[in-house]
Amino acid sequence: MTNFLKLQSVDSILEHIRKFSPLPGERLPLEDALGRVLAAPFTAPENLPSFTRSSMDGFAVMARDVFGASESAPALLDYAGECPMGGKTELVLAPGQTARIWTGGMLPEGADAVVMLEYSRWDGGAQVELTKPAAPFDNVIATGEDAEKGAELLGAGRFLRPQELGLLAAFGVRTVEVRRMARVAVISSGDEIVPGDVAPAPGQVRDINACTLSALVRSGKGTARFYGIAKDSGAELLRMLEEAMTWADAVLLSGGSSAGQRDYALEALSAVSCMEILAHGVAISPGKPLILARRGEQSFWGLPGHAGSALVCAEVFIRPLLRRLAGQDEPEPWRNAVRAVLGRPIASAQGRRDYIKVRLRPPEDPGGLPSAVPVTGKSGLIATLTEADALVICPEDQEGLAAGGIVLAYFLQ
Amino acid sequence: MTNFLKLQSVDSILEHIRKFSPLPGERLPLEDALGRVLAAPFTAPENLPSFTRSSMDGFAVMARDVFGASESAPALLDYAGECPMGGKTELVLAPGQTARIWTGGMLPEGADAVVMLEYSRWDGGAQVELTKPAAPFDNVIATGEDAEKGAELLGAGRFLRPQELGLLAAFGVRTVEVRRMARVAVISSGDEIVPGDVAPAPGQVRDINACTLSALVRSGKGTARFYGIAKDSGAELLRMLEEAMTWADAVLLSGGSSAGQRDYALEALSAVSCMEILAHGVAISPGKPLILARRGEQSFWGLPGHAGSALVCAEVFIRPLLRRLAGQDEPEPWRNAVRAVLGRPIASAQGRRDYIKVRLRPPEDPGGLPSAVPVTGKSGLIATLTEADALVICPEDQEGLAAGGIVLAYFLQ
Repeated sequence: MTNFLKLQSVDSILEHIRKFSPLPGERLPLEDALGRVLAAPFTAPENLPSFTRSSMDGFAVMARDVFGASESAPALLDYAGECPMGGKTELVLAPGQTARIWTGGMLPEGADAVVMLEYSRWDGGAQVELTKPAAPFDNVIATGEDAEKGAELLGAGRFLRPQELGLLAAFGVRTVEVRRMARVAVISSGDEIVPGDVAPAPGQVRDINACTLSALVRSGKGTARFYGIAKDSGAELLRMLEEAMTWADAVLLSGGSSAGQRDYALEALSAVSCMEILAHGVAISPGKPLILARRGEQSFWGLPGHAGSALVCAEVFIRPLLRRLAGQDEPEPWRNAVRAVLGRPIASAQGRRDYIKVRLRPPEDPGGLPSAVPVTGKSGLIATLTEADALVICPEDQEGLAAGGIVLAYFLQ
Repeated sequence: MTNFLKLQSVDSILEHIRKFSPLPGERLPLEDALGRVLAAPFTAPENLPSFTRSSMDGFAVMARDVFGASESAPALLDYAGECPMGGKTELVLAPGQTARIWTGGMLPEGADAVVMLEYSRWDGGAQVELTKPAAPFDNVIATGEDAEKGAELLGAGRFLRPQELGLLAAFGVRTVEVRRMARVAVISSGDEIVPGDVAPAPGQVRDINACTLSALVRSGKGTARFYGIAKDSGAELLRMLEEAMTWADAVLLSGGSSAGQRDYALEALSAVSCMEILAHGVAISPGKPLILARRGEQSFWGLPGHAGSALVCAEVFIRPLLRRLAGQDEPEPWRNAVRAVLGRPIASAQGRRDYIKVRLRPPEDPGGLPSAVPVTGKSGLIATLTEADALVICPEDQEGLAAGGIVLAYFLQ
């Protein structure tokens, strides 16, 4: 009865994903680029700072003039004036001279360090006592010390956090080239599915996947657009697919991806010209009847109809797809997972990769690992997924995981 | 010279934060509530699903009629018809009868389980052979099995991920009451600071904090509004503060928070009626000259002027403030930190909590911990912060951390 061509491994699907090209760039105002990914490297156009600044309130000095200064044997320097804030100082320090300076002020010519105010005695007269020595560049930020002109500061593919935006702002950058957001079309299917705003009649259920899959796309910085609920008919699905294809980088179908009599996803996809079916069936639970197809740089996904299963498959495959399209590397596992102690044994079938929903519980002793407790309930349910903090993998070469073993728990964001 | 009243501990500032009340709720369309926090608990208004559904393509049966069935001794049942999809089935199974059913279809009265298509033989005639037994509720999702009417499914304070939105969508929820986003005003200060779109003259630098602090607020699901750059004058700062106060839940000043002659933040804050200065000076590095003030439910923060220091202080204090205002609990450390091996020793002063910027490097062996390598460079710089993946804490009761020790590295998002 199963018409699956051949179950492919999860890794082979991830390998298919890596063959898609990152999306082209788009130019955005800096403040809109938070959480986006740089499309081109950024090189410092000038030195940062462009002049040597004090990082403290105090006295600008030549370091050699305060060599060996102490509370009991202070250095005695001639007061040469005060450095202005926000302007170029005209002062030039001669040997034996010092100038009052404030945090952020430009060092006068001749000075190479600052002695903090706390280590000074000055009555406003012609001489200043400094009670602490300074090495060259103490309490200053030298020209180019933050970033040197010509240095590549941020590579292409860099994820933009507040600090990356701040670095760009420091150079007066107002717009930045980032990867365009992936456009992801979402299509639900099933004769029994009604839109969320329709009261279901007996035998009908509300669409959940339109909501969850769109939200997952948006949480991964993609743009989601819902194309509707297709009845179980190849023609209607094909019509929606063709509409979605005019806009989308990726199309997520849910429901109808299996190989039964009422499963039209494969039929509809196969009817599209130049469509290449890359996979029908994956050795994964949940999500065995998954379809992946490709047409140029567009990808097409047949996901399970059960809401919980569809969302787990989206975590496993659509998040990496969104990262790939944004030109981001896959995170190393310790960046989005935590090591935890498995709280209960898990049974699995060999040859299949299982994703098990777990709740994370605090460690029993403060230095210990949290425990990962599998959430009970059938896999397709949506409520059980709201109880889960993370997913634990039971790999293909194991028939289960023993309680008390250490696992990686991948956070559900 | 230092007029610090008294250095407070980081924990005492975090304690002040916990005394602010969560913000009131606002009602949003479900699709706009991603990443927000529920303001009221959600109770299931009906059973989910509202009828017993098949979770497979197959034959609906009374479990007792297929007891002991096998390939060699199949159960022979009378074919009673096909259950319609998306409608109420009129079929009622009598003992010894079975009905064709599809995934998602409503079980007929009398049936309590489904035998998968793979374990059936049927030539379209009056009888069906089933070659596998089923226990009651096998391959079905029973009425209320996903969620039972009246059960509290999501508590107040719950962070809304795709699955929580999906659960709400399953009940036809279209709008949801979430905590209002915190309104955070950002004010920069300093005679030497110019806006990002102005070419700095000698002695001037571009404002970085307006960009980084606003971005951090937005990444924590707050609304940021920039009020401008105050010159070093108490009167100008006070005017901006008073304007910001008419809108903001929290005001972030950067620069001028120290106790020097040109530091006007405390003076301006003290001039506001009913303002309570909760702290001036915190035993933290970077960020010692921090100010926290409170007026009713509004908080006011004097942050360092140096961009790198201001952003670290915002990570340490403003992220928890945003979570508090959203009614969220503080995450347990293993949720936003990774255990890592310190790559180099760190020196610190006793009595002070140091936040050290680190880069994370993959573990040498696959099962090992990543290593946390301190980023070199002066603490106020912005470029060094772009090189950092995380912050490591050197606690108050230690004078440093030894290389090779295990630390928690808190991710910089």
